[in-house]
Amino acid sequence: MHVIELARPDTKAFQRVVRPDPAAPGDRQVLVRMRAASLNFIDVAVVRGHYPAASYPNIPVADGAGEVVEVGAGVTHLKAGDRVAIHPKAIWVGGRPTRERAHIMRGVTVPGSLTEYQLVDAATAVRAPDHLTWAEIAALPITFTTGWSSLKMADINAGATIVVLGTGGASLSTLQLAKAQGARVIVTSSSDDKIERAKALGADAGVNYRTTPDWHERVLDLTDGVGADLVFEAAGTDTFPRSIKSVRQGGTVFTIGFRTGGVAELDLMAVIVNGLRIIGTNTGSADDLREAVRAVASTGLRPVIAQTYGLDQIEAAYEAFAKGEAFGKTVFDIAW
Amino acid sequence: MHVIELARPDTKAFQRVVRPDPAAPGDRQVLVRMRAASLNFIDVAVVRGHYPAASYPNIPVADGAGEVVEVGAGVTHLKAGDRVAIHPKAIWVGGRPTRERAHIMRGVTVPGSLTEYQLVDAATAVRAPDHLTWAEIAALPITFTTGWSSLKMADINAGATIVVLGTGGASLSTLQLAKAQGARVIVTSSSDDKIERAKALGADAGVNYRTTPDWHERVLDLTDGVGADLVFEAAGTDTFPRSIKSVRQGGTVFTIGFRTGGVAELDLMAVIVNGLRIIGTNTGSADDLREAVRAVASTGLRPVIAQTYGLDQIEAAYEAFAKGEAFGKTVFDIAW
Amino acid sequence: MHVIELARPDTKAFQRVVRPDPAAPGDRQVLVRMRAASLNFIDVAVVRGHYPAASYPNIPVADGAGEVVEVGAGVTHLKAGDRVAIHPKAIWVGGRPTRERAHIMRGVTVPGSLTEYQLVDAATAVRAPDHLTWAEIAALPITFTTGWSSLKMADINAGATIVVLGTGGASLSTLQLAKAQGARVIVTSSSDDKIERAKALGADAGVNYRTTPDWHERVLDLTDGVGADLVFEAAGTDTFPRSIKSVRQGGTVFTIGFRTGGVAELDLMAVIVNGLRIIGTNTGSADDLREAVRAVASTGLRPVIAQTYGLDQIEAAYEAFAKGEAFGKTVFDIAW
Amino acid sequence: MHVIELARPDTKAFQRVVRPDPAAPGDRQVLVRMRAASLNFIDVAVVRGHYPAASYPNIPVADGAGEVVEVGAGVTHLKAGDRVAIHPKAIWVGGRPTRERAHIMRGVTVPGSLTEYQLVDAATAVRAPDHLTWAEIAALPITFTTGWSSLKMADINAGATIVVLGTGGASLSTLQLAKAQGARVIVTSSSDDKIERAKALGADAGVNYRTTPDWHERVLDLTDGVGADLVFEAAGTDTFPRSIKSVRQGGTVFTIGFRTGGVAELDLMAVIVNGLRIIGTNTGSADDLREAVRAVASTGLRPVIAQTYGLDQIEAAYEAFAKGEAFGKTVFDIAW
Repeated sequence: MHVIELARPDTKAFQRVVRPDPAAPGDRQVLVRMRAASLNFIDVAVVRGHYPAASYPNIPVADGAGEVVEVGAGVTHLKAGDRVAIHPKAIWVGGRPTRERAHIMRGVTVPGSLTEYQLVDAATAVRAPDHLTWAEIAALPITFTTGWSSLKMADINAGATIVVLGTGGASLSTLQLAKAQGARVIVTSSSDDKIERAKALGADAGVNYRTTPDWHERVLDLTDGVGADLVFEAAGTDTFPRSIKSVRQGGTVFTIGFRTGGVAELDLMAVIVNGLRIIGTNTGSADDLREAVRAVASTGLRPVIAQTYGLDQIEAAYEAFAKGEAFGKTVFDIAW
Repeated sequence: MHVIELARPDTKAFQRVVRPDPAAPGDRQVLVRMRAASLNFIDVAVVRGHYPAASYPNIPVADGAGEVVEVGAGVTHLKAGDRVAIHPKAIWVGGRPTRERAHIMRGVTVPGSLTEYQLVDAATAVRAPDHLTWAEIAALPITFTTGWSSLKMADINAGATIVVLGTGGASLSTLQLAKAQGARVIVTSSSDDKIERAKALGADAGVNYRTTPDWHERVLDLTDGVGADLVFEAAGTDTFPRSIKSVRQGGTVFTIGFRTGGVAELDLMAVIVNGLRIIGTNTGSADDLREAVRAVASTGLRPVIAQTYGLDQIEAAYEAFAKGEAFGKTVFDIAW
Repeated sequence: MHVIELARPDTKAFQRVVRPDPAAPGDRQVLVRMRAASLNFIDVAVVRGHYPAASYPNIPVADGAGEVVEVGAGVTHLKAGDRVAIHPKAIWVGGRPTRERAHIMRGVTVPGSLTEYQLVDAATAVRAPDHLTWAEIAALPITFTTGWSSLKMADINAGATIVVLGTGGASLSTLQLAKAQGARVIVTSSSDDKIERAKALGADAGVNYRTTPDWHERVLDLTDGVGADLVFEAAGTDTFPRSIKSVRQGGTVFTIGFRTGGVAELDLMAVIVNGLRIIGTNTGSADDLREAVRAVASTGLRPVIAQTYGLDQIEAAYEAFAKGEAFGKTVFDIAW
Repeated sequence: MHVIELARPDTKAFQRVVRPDPAAPGDRQVLVRMRAASLNFIDVAVVRGHYPAASYPNIPVADGAGEVVEVGAGVTHLKAGDRVAIHPKAIWVGGRPTRERAHIMRGVTVPGSLTEYQLVDAATAVRAPDHLTWAEIAALPITFTTGWSSLKMADINAGATIVVLGTGGASLSTLQLAKAQGARVIVTSSSDDKIERAKALGADAGVNYRTTPDWHERVLDLTDGVGADLVFEAAGTDTFPRSIKSVRQGGTVFTIGFRTGGVAELDLMAVIVNGLRIIGTNTGSADDLREAVRAVASTGLRPVIAQTYGLDQIEAAYEAFAKGEAFGKTVFDIAW
């Protein structure tokens, strides 16, 4: 079968090669013909050699979507022809996090999505809602799992206010899921145009952090001085201190991004006096994805696709994505 | 009645004065004759003017204990003669944190414990276990509430491993409560002698951070490389980065201390990749204290008293306490 | 002031009397001029003498709404002129349930809403959203607190499916809150007309239990054989066994109603094998109401009023309400 | 290999047969040489044909222990020679319950423990503490998972009071785990002698329900009229109504047993007014077992073995066990 291989941490080291076809699915496994994949910052970190414990050579890209072509013994919830999103945490089906469950990750430590076929544990393949395209299915795993986790861990319900930083895929999926649950959403961006597009997706308010550098004060204004219940911290070093100032007593800063840097100054006094919670994740379990996908199916929402690339444009796709300026997800169409 | 007043943020500004006797208790209030009080770092911050929103002049000291002398209408769980610990959060009886519930605090924004009589909401006065002395009752509120909260929020049960930093009152109460629940406790200290004393209280292991500056590596060794389920972060700036390195995938750093500084460098990448939680508190609700006291009553444990001072030694007590070297709580005997 | 008094458990024992005006509000109290009240089944049980520990004579009706006329010391979140919903649990502001917090209830053990003025703990008076009428505000406390609690305790989020039994006030408020959070709602009724009206409020499907006595089988069909995440059990004896059969593995039957009887046959084997949860409540804390009201304010939803009565129609109102056939809440306009 | 087969639901239908040796372990599987097994009521229900969806013919007995003889690819936490407890839920590694996860169960729907070798998902094989014998390891899975779940779901911590009904394996494991976590335990029994033995294991009080038929009143006395935080309901029809009367406001009846019958009369009014929770389980996930075993390892406690039988005494063992009079677990020594 055809695969894309990343020989080493190097943005020029992608190559198309032929590898042996996968074995037939074993107990509770499914064989999937891959159709699309989407990029997340972890993929950039892998290519740049910034991610701890990434393996090389490896088949890159964590998120993927495809069609089930064969199911192994004991698989009852999937059949040939089903369209599935594949969760990148290859063995984290559900339950408590452990180092192994969190770290064994497709496209990072085990083979990822840029391949013709993939053999996966059926419990990590989630049947996709009928209304989605291949690109939209591939956009689901990391960002919708993460967005869903942030809302659950911060106990976000109708009436709560959340802030999402920026308009990348993770922030937009969190915006969409939060709106589906009746929460109020404030989005930050450096672009008034993107703020308008976020509002078209449901955002209740936007703050342009270029023209309003002290955007946290605007968040406080918009919440009657109380602060937000949750800040979805998708940026890192530059925004973290203001994120801390934006949340209410007992509020949560959910930290998933390191685009502007991986170290932040933490005001312990604020954390203590305001009883804050900071929670990190590089994405949750397949059970979390399953719940998020159920919400997507039920509400009919669609992930936002910024741009789709072919497999002959891999370097360009990574380069464009790494700028962090896309509105929504960057996707690969997998066709050989 | 006699009270001690702190006129302004100044370690020399304590004075004994006479104030009008309190009114009779209203609905669901109790009048308490104060017998003892204990110091916490928040008291030092108030005296030094480092605590946001502290009021001056005010009657100092958050934690206190006394005897009920009169109960108002509707009080059914207390009667004259009962010995009570008074929770410093004057209106936070239970339920979700709000700015008001967290910030209205005896000895900080409203009158505290160094007074002959105090009129309090009966729901914030917790009946003390019979086996405790006045000094021990006064030692309960902040440290046992905080220790209890840390164990609950981090889901600590029998078989879990926790690390407590240092041997101050909060750390020792957490050690004691954790042992009562079957957890394994590692204590850090700069003194082998204090480590031995902590072991006598039940600690399973100790690390001298003076002779083992990379104490987090010892924690990893002691947990088969997994890391602790919880670090009780009672120190602040100096220890925070190593605390982050000491916890397991999905583990919790519970941050309550700022003795070595109120700002820390936060490794966002570690928080994200290891799925960590950082939770702050300057203490919880009266309901949390009630649960902690129930555990104290049931297990028969006794808070550790480092030293008891009279009301003629206030400055000396604060000065000694502020060094952060006491093994256990620093207490005032309230007698006029 | 004018009050309605229920002299004893007897549907003919309501009388209008004059009682002394209330005192000025004490610390953290507010004085409220009552404007409306709404009926719940607990009120019927009190009038009929079926409720354990109800007091007689007493001022009846648990739920109420009014205008703040004076605030006591320390009240910062309310001012004269504010419109408030008054929570019936007079001392349960938040936190863990205790017998006292659950049982001290306006209109049951302490004076209720059919009075000109009421003096209440400010923490149990919740500021009403601007878009609601007095009748709608009075409709909030028990039913919206209960509906909200059911969704929280059963972890209902977007994509979940819930079943509400009937179209009384509690069921409709749960329907509305569940839709605000993106859940799917199935409603049961004996009337196709009411099912249509429930659909107009957002219900996704309805089952007429008169024409489909085995309505639980229809629930299973509508959930691909999986069962609902939550059944809001508002009826009691007659429906309980089918409610148990309607929920999914690990699902919840939230039981609040005893209209068709207060004892049910429980299939323990089903509870064990299917890992079910049965949770009861006669309503939660003021904190729960506060959260529910925040959701009402944010989403703009309006409680459904079936009919409004004057204080000269008390017996008629109770009698009509007790039939359990109203679509939405039965309300009193309080004017003397 | 040798196996015991149950041809049909019939206590005389056990037979020793020879079956093909298992295949080599696949990805993340381990091959285990079985050494011991223990009985639970589910095994009796299977033999009697009372359990929904049980398969025949099948290899009986859910709980088992053995020695790892070979590990498949990707297994890092186990190696040949390790002693393991095998969790009966063959695919429920962790996370949310689903019908499939709950119902696929060794000895019930898939092959169980009375076999020479068993091939299992490595994530369902839990390494045993060094201080346990084979019989004690085999006694762990269902009862310790269930006991652990009851304590977690009811939020039992130091200072809480629980009631365990009877002195079978499940009740004693719950007693032991509860004591390890600092809770207070009341045990019921028909035998003063068994109560004394339970006290030797740590029980704080006992009630002989033969001489004190209204044992729930004794529970109320022992809890100052408040009621227990948790009743571990291991009996069923006969005890259920009194269990409901034994718990506090907001307390939990955790129901796992149907020995005295599978249908109970449920006082809905009590559930509603007292805000009770009834939670059922026929045991949780492998993650729950892992946590329980960690507690066993850390505290050094040992499951209680009532009696050990050889494979030539299968009928006798089932018959003795089914009487429900054993103090602790009934175990098979697996030797051919």
